Amino acid sequence: MHTTRLDTARVRAARRLIDPVFLDTPLYRCEALEPDLGCAVSVKLETANPVRSFKGRGTELVASLLAAHGPRAVVCASAGNLGQALAWSARDRGLDVTVVASRHATAAKLDRIRALGAGLELVDGDHEAARERAAALARHDGVRLLEDSLDIETCEGAATIGLELAESGRRFDAVLLALGGGALATGVGHVLKDLTPEVEVICVQPLGAPAMTRSWHRRRVVTTDATDTIADGVAGRRPIPAVLDDLLLVADDAVLVREASIVTGMRMLLHHAGLVVEPSAALGIAALLEDRDRFAGRSVVTVVCGGNVDPEAYGRWVGWTPPGTP
Amino acid sequence: MHTTRLDTARVRAARRLIDPVFLDTPLYRCEALEPDLGCAVSVKLETANPVRSFKGRGTELVASLLAAHGPRAVVCASAGNLGQALAWSARDRGLDVTVVASRHATAAKLDRIRALGAGLELVDGDHEAARERAAALARHDGVRLLEDSLDIETCEGAATIGLELAESGRRFDAVLLALGGGALATGVGHVLKDLTPEVEVICVQPLGAPAMTRSWHRRRVVTTDATDTIADGVAGRRPIPAVLDDLLLVADDAVLVREASIVTGMRMLLHHAGLVVEPSAALGIAALLEDRDRFAGRSVVTVVCGGNVDPEAYGRWVGWTPPGTP
Repeated sequence: MHTTRLDTARVRAARRLIDPVFLDTPLYRCEALEPDLGCAVSVKLETANPVRSFKGRGTELVASLLAAHGPRAVVCASAGNLGQALAWSARDRGLDVTVVASRHATAAKLDRIRALGAGLELVDGDHEAARERAAALARHDGVRLLEDSLDIETCEGAATIGLELAESGRRFDAVLLALGGGALATGVGHVLKDLTPEVEVICVQPLGAPAMTRSWHRRRVVTTDATDTIADGVAGRRPIPAVLDDLLLVADDAVLVREASIVTGMRMLLHHAGLVVEPSAALGIAALLEDRDRFAGRSVVTVVCGGNVDPEAYGRWVGWTPPGTP
Repeated sequence: MHTTRLDTARVRAARRLIDPVFLDTPLYRCEALEPDLGCAVSVKLETANPVRSFKGRGTELVASLLAAHGPRAVVCASAGNLGQALAWSARDRGLDVTVVASRHATAAKLDRIRALGAGLELVDGDHEAARERAAALARHDGVRLLEDSLDIETCEGAATIGLELAESGRRFDAVLLALGGGALATGVGHVLKDLTPEVEVICVQPLGAPAMTRSWHRRRVVTTDATDTIADGVAGRRPIPAVLDDLLLVADDAVLVREASIVTGMRMLLHHAGLVVEPSAALGIAALLEDRDRFAGRSVVTVVCGGNVDPEAYGRWVGWTPPGTP
């Protein structure tokens, strides 16, 4: 394969810096999902850890490197999961964390960031506004700016999932990955293309936040003016060129799915697999729902990348409402 | 310690016979639960596997031994989780499984047993009636009767959880275990008392199904005429003497909790930890809720032992109802 910014040997080494609580996550087949999907479906479950998303893999790497060599302060923009994970990884290492988030971010994510002792600055506007503000803060305060998907630790942390998939002893025809900034997709994709190139790497993004997918198809950065999706974790508008370059090397396809399919995916994961997932984590199931012919009879795995939801919104999505709610 | 029927070396060896999909399950702290509980709470999560309960650890052992040496047919009584796990373990080994269950058992559990290709016989009455019928079937057909908690494989399979806790590198003051027939409690309890005797082993049972707990306190088998609990997985009435003997050696305490506390525990696990659990798996949290003073400031771990629920009943328990439901 052509060379991405990632390095599989470095990904292997990264495992030694990551708290084991984030590693070797459950990987198992969910047969109860299969009658509705028409293919063999496995999940790689990234929600059963202290921050309920895969982001701890990357932030452990960042924080352990900072604790050893770097500045003691770090700022990041986050839709919530990166910020929570960074706050968790920084706490016991005595690092000073500031998270910048949109004031419209998922409240449960913001609550956890505060509870973990990180500074939290809320901005008007969306995730791109938070990115701008974080960059300005870092410049002004002279602290480390952690940029999700651009900073190689975020990609190589996520890439340890790919290592676990490739070395699981299980054979999959395709892996379905939520696509946002691209850390998960380029990370997992890099390792799979390196170690098991026959596995199809398929990225999935909401129709309401299609910038990276459109960029992948046109092979150049395409931005959008707005996003409109419940999948807050992947709602970016301005793809990072270096990440797109990597994605072009490792992704076999990038598809867009409807909001209704994401919601159906969340319901199916709850009712047939007992999994509470955030919208971004249902993108893979949504893609299976929207193209049954493509996957019929094949063996697929989807990374269930996060489970941080606001209970009320979640109840609405899965069709459950608290008593007394109209 | 005095000698139980279990053997820690045999438990270690058992790990090699159990499909890795059931082993090394997530163990992590759930800080979002802690403000309401007043102690440090970790979970050992046994729901993220193909049968959504810990029972696969024991049935893998049973099925691999039967496939190597034993009869090719096996019958068991089950509230659902043992049956589902046995059906899963038997399928690829070509074993013939019959599960006997109460017709009032959780429908989702019975559906999975059928889907996995096992024979299913439903009986009127409760789990004790199913036990009698399974024993009669085994005698009549001359096949192996698998008796949960009595058969040592079910205890030593569960005991591998204890091994993982003891060797996790984490220190706990107390472990909270759902108590039903006793396989989980005697299994995990045996290993903990052997390897980390300072850890308090606390068994938790519903007030509505108190037979084993009463037996433990009186140091002799006490039966009850009926059970009245939503915790179907632990609703036995006739403790097995040999299992009680083991429990007397390994449990530091056995407590009874109210149904309301079980329901609150399920809600907390859903809303603060994103975990869908069946009532039996919320017994540990229920015990923490009912005796905050006892656990204040301590570090506890509870085994989240199963997550097979009927969606409608579950929605009712956690206070969510499908739209249109009064």
